[in-house]
Amino acid sequence: MNPRALTEPATDARLIDALAEIVGHTHVLTDPELIEGYTRDWTGRWIGDAIAVIRPGNTSEVSAVLRACFDAGVPVTPQGGNTGLVGGGIASTGSVVLSTRRLETIEAVDPIGRTIAAGAGVTVARADLAASAHGLRFGIDLASKESATLGGIVATNAGGTRMVRYGNTRAQILGIEAVLADGSVLSRWTPLVKDNVGYDIPGLLAGSEGTLAVITKVLMKLVTPATDTQVVLAGVRDVDQALLLCNRVRQSGLTVEAAEIMTDDGISLVCAHTDARRPFGTPSPMYTLIEVSSPRETEESLLEVLSDSADLIEDATVEPGPARKLWTLRESHTESISASSTTPVVKLDISVPLSVMGMFIDNLRESLAQRFPLVRPILFGHFADGNIHVNLLDAEPRVAHELTDMVFRLVAAHHGSISAEHGIGRAKSPWISLGRTETDIAAMQLIKSSWDPRGILNPGILLPEKVG
Amino acid sequence: MNPRALTEPATDARLIDALAEIVGHTHVLTDPELIEGYTRDWTGRWIGDAIAVIRPGNTSEVSAVLRACFDAGVPVTPQGGNTGLVGGGIASTGSVVLSTRRLETIEAVDPIGRTIAAGAGVTVARADLAASAHGLRFGIDLASKESATLGGIVATNAGGTRMVRYGNTRAQILGIEAVLADGSVLSRWTPLVKDNVGYDIPGLLAGSEGTLAVITKVLMKLVTPATDTQVVLAGVRDVDQALLLCNRVRQSGLTVEAAEIMTDDGISLVCAHTDARRPFGTPSPMYTLIEVSSPRETEESLLEVLSDSADLIEDATVEPGPARKLWTLRESHTESISASSTTPVVKLDISVPLSVMGMFIDNLRESLAQRFPLVRPILFGHFADGNIHVNLLDAEPRVAHELTDMVFRLVAAHHGSISAEHGIGRAKSPWISLGRTETDIAAMQLIKSSWDPRGILNPGILLPEKVG
Repeated sequence: MNPRALTEPATDARLIDALAEIVGHTHVLTDPELIEGYTRDWTGRWIGDAIAVIRPGNTSEVSAVLRACFDAGVPVTPQGGNTGLVGGGIASTGSVVLSTRRLETIEAVDPIGRTIAAGAGVTVARADLAASAHGLRFGIDLASKESATLGGIVATNAGGTRMVRYGNTRAQILGIEAVLADGSVLSRWTPLVKDNVGYDIPGLLAGSEGTLAVITKVLMKLVTPATDTQVVLAGVRDVDQALLLCNRVRQSGLTVEAAEIMTDDGISLVCAHTDARRPFGTPSPMYTLIEVSSPRETEESLLEVLSDSADLIEDATVEPGPARKLWTLRESHTESISASSTTPVVKLDISVPLSVMGMFIDNLRESLAQRFPLVRPILFGHFADGNIHVNLLDAEPRVAHELTDMVFRLVAAHHGSISAEHGIGRAKSPWISLGRTETDIAAMQLIKSSWDPRGILNPGILLPEKVG
Repeated sequence: MNPRALTEPATDARLIDALAEIVGHTHVLTDPELIEGYTRDWTGRWIGDAIAVIRPGNTSEVSAVLRACFDAGVPVTPQGGNTGLVGGGIASTGSVVLSTRRLETIEAVDPIGRTIAAGAGVTVARADLAASAHGLRFGIDLASKESATLGGIVATNAGGTRMVRYGNTRAQILGIEAVLADGSVLSRWTPLVKDNVGYDIPGLLAGSEGTLAVITKVLMKLVTPATDTQVVLAGVRDVDQALLLCNRVRQSGLTVEAAEIMTDDGISLVCAHTDARRPFGTPSPMYTLIEVSSPRETEESLLEVLSDSADLIEDATVEPGPARKLWTLRESHTESISASSTTPVVKLDISVPLSVMGMFIDNLRESLAQRFPLVRPILFGHFADGNIHVNLLDAEPRVAHELTDMVFRLVAAHHGSISAEHGIGRAKSPWISLGRTETDIAAMQLIKSSWDPRGILNPGILLPEKVG
């Protein structure tokens, strides 16, 4: 439940005045037209509401804003670039949106320690650009990088295309500054790889989706760009063959930079809707795209692995890393899928253990054929992470919830996750018990209550609301 | 404060009877001679006490033991292989030691998913052996691997010699089963790389030093062994040159498997106390040992980097990975140091940011020369992680505390950590405020209190005890 069931206009007005005192009148938005960009997501799926959008310019202001809201018992929805896909940054009626976009200072890039220190409002693209100036790169890459902020990717523990190489956002964090519900400022700011002193608070805040604190500043790892990359596209019988091939590539000592899977259905859609051509004369049931790197002679090493893997591969073609012809087949999936469905596509971001991925795919197709015979599944994704983007075409909108429920239950039955990388937010919180035990959820709620006893931070997001 | 200031013999006897009912009489040890191996650490520095040592054989027994102790208000000290260095597994008077060593089943090694599922009492060496049977390795390697248990290395978030390559223990965990103070069993058991559903409970338990739960089972990553390794030993002017060299090696695309630093003083000790010879005719102030790997022609790539790094290197020699001649210079440090000191060596495991490591070393030497002119510092360690093992020779035992305090304050002034990899335990908890802010410590204490309201799990370890 929200701390307040109803808004109280007089109290709200007093709070808004107090907040304007803190951040300045120009940084308190209440005009419905101005706040619309903060109260709906870019897909248009989530439409929220707020009494105001507050745009603090530094950590002290964030602290003062939270203290005022805490005292007033008004819920706060922290928001970065508003690029989330599960409604985690969308406020409910009576809430204040706390936008971190003005916390946009890049404090330092340390080329020796290979770190970046930056405000929560700095975008991923800007962080990457700052790193590039020192011959380094930011470890997270994702489609929304021009808008997604560092605070946002930490709060949601974002994944992205380089996760198979560098890990998730949680793995990139070294230090964090965040403001707790009561306004106290938590700072763990040691640019140390090894700092084994107590509980992993930065890791706890990563993926907490704004329910534990408002992240104001982060200290994150930077990575060395890959050298001499090569891309292979191989036709395979099934996902198990693709996994074995990927492991064989790793065993050879090559570094896997990306590992994607596509089905023949997906390739057909892409070839129908773009000017891409089928990669091989004879179609394979599945295709895997693997990008690799190594210090030298990557192509030679890769060709050696491939010639030793005739047992796994039906056909294969290789191109050097900078070229994007093979990647186009993968990257054109989203637009081709949207263009081919007669109804809005049901898109579910899930993962399953690698050892049952093949079985899951078979069972998913079978269940769909039985219960939703007109729905066309197109599957693709970062398979080496167990991550599959399940796209369901031609599903009537009235069955979307039932379809989602069926897929999530099947995922749970295969010990998979209902959220591989997008988080839980509002969209998936009804299904959280499919992925977490009662004790686990209770343990999370104990942490939430101990840090935010009035429950003002992002109520209704991630954890099921306590009733009564 | 312990939940009970004094032991109560009658209550203790009833509790011990109840615990014997749960685990069987043979697994409850009360004889002082039998429990001695559990109440002191192997270095002899920490000598504790216990009313009994309980050795449960499965998770249900751990749960029942904890519930009984929780109801009786008796403190519990979880213990794995008892190889810790900071007294974190040493019980205080009136406590029960809960040994996890009988939880020693290796449930499964999954060669496709590259994971191992095993009881908390399985040793690191056994886990590594089980992985080897599938051409894989366990990601953590440390000197105590024959005794150190998986539960123990997770609870202490151990580091070790391969951390620069694979990260700390926290980075290896995929799933965990643990029993909370009240006996409820928390299970997060998804062998998934991508499972973005709520707070990172496995990561929170890693490094919690037995204060939040008793770990009973873990699901951990396995890694692919390195190919074609080469070791270089280079003489350098200072640690900054060594760091630049290490970064240049990385930029070339070679994988850094280990990166160690030694000083000329240390090499001199080793050459005086073993049959090792000085590596080069002309001594350098410092020496760095870097082990690298790549899919092919590692030696060629390495020699190329070295010939391009004449600006950084005073002298260098290379040997292929399996040979250990160069590693011997590093590995003989501990025994040579012990043999050369007139008093027990003060050993402090610290880390500092890479960018100030050189400055820290200079300042440390200067402070010692001023305040403790007779103390001889020998420094070595995993420098690419910022980790320095500070060894202080010839220090009179009566100044050990003051000396430790001086070093830790200097570490804090350089934004370093008073514990790089050993944890806090009893040894360092008086200094925890040098590494964590008041808000941070309070936030940790809130989590502790919410999960363990009676404070029975490892009181006095890691977090400062609340007074009153």
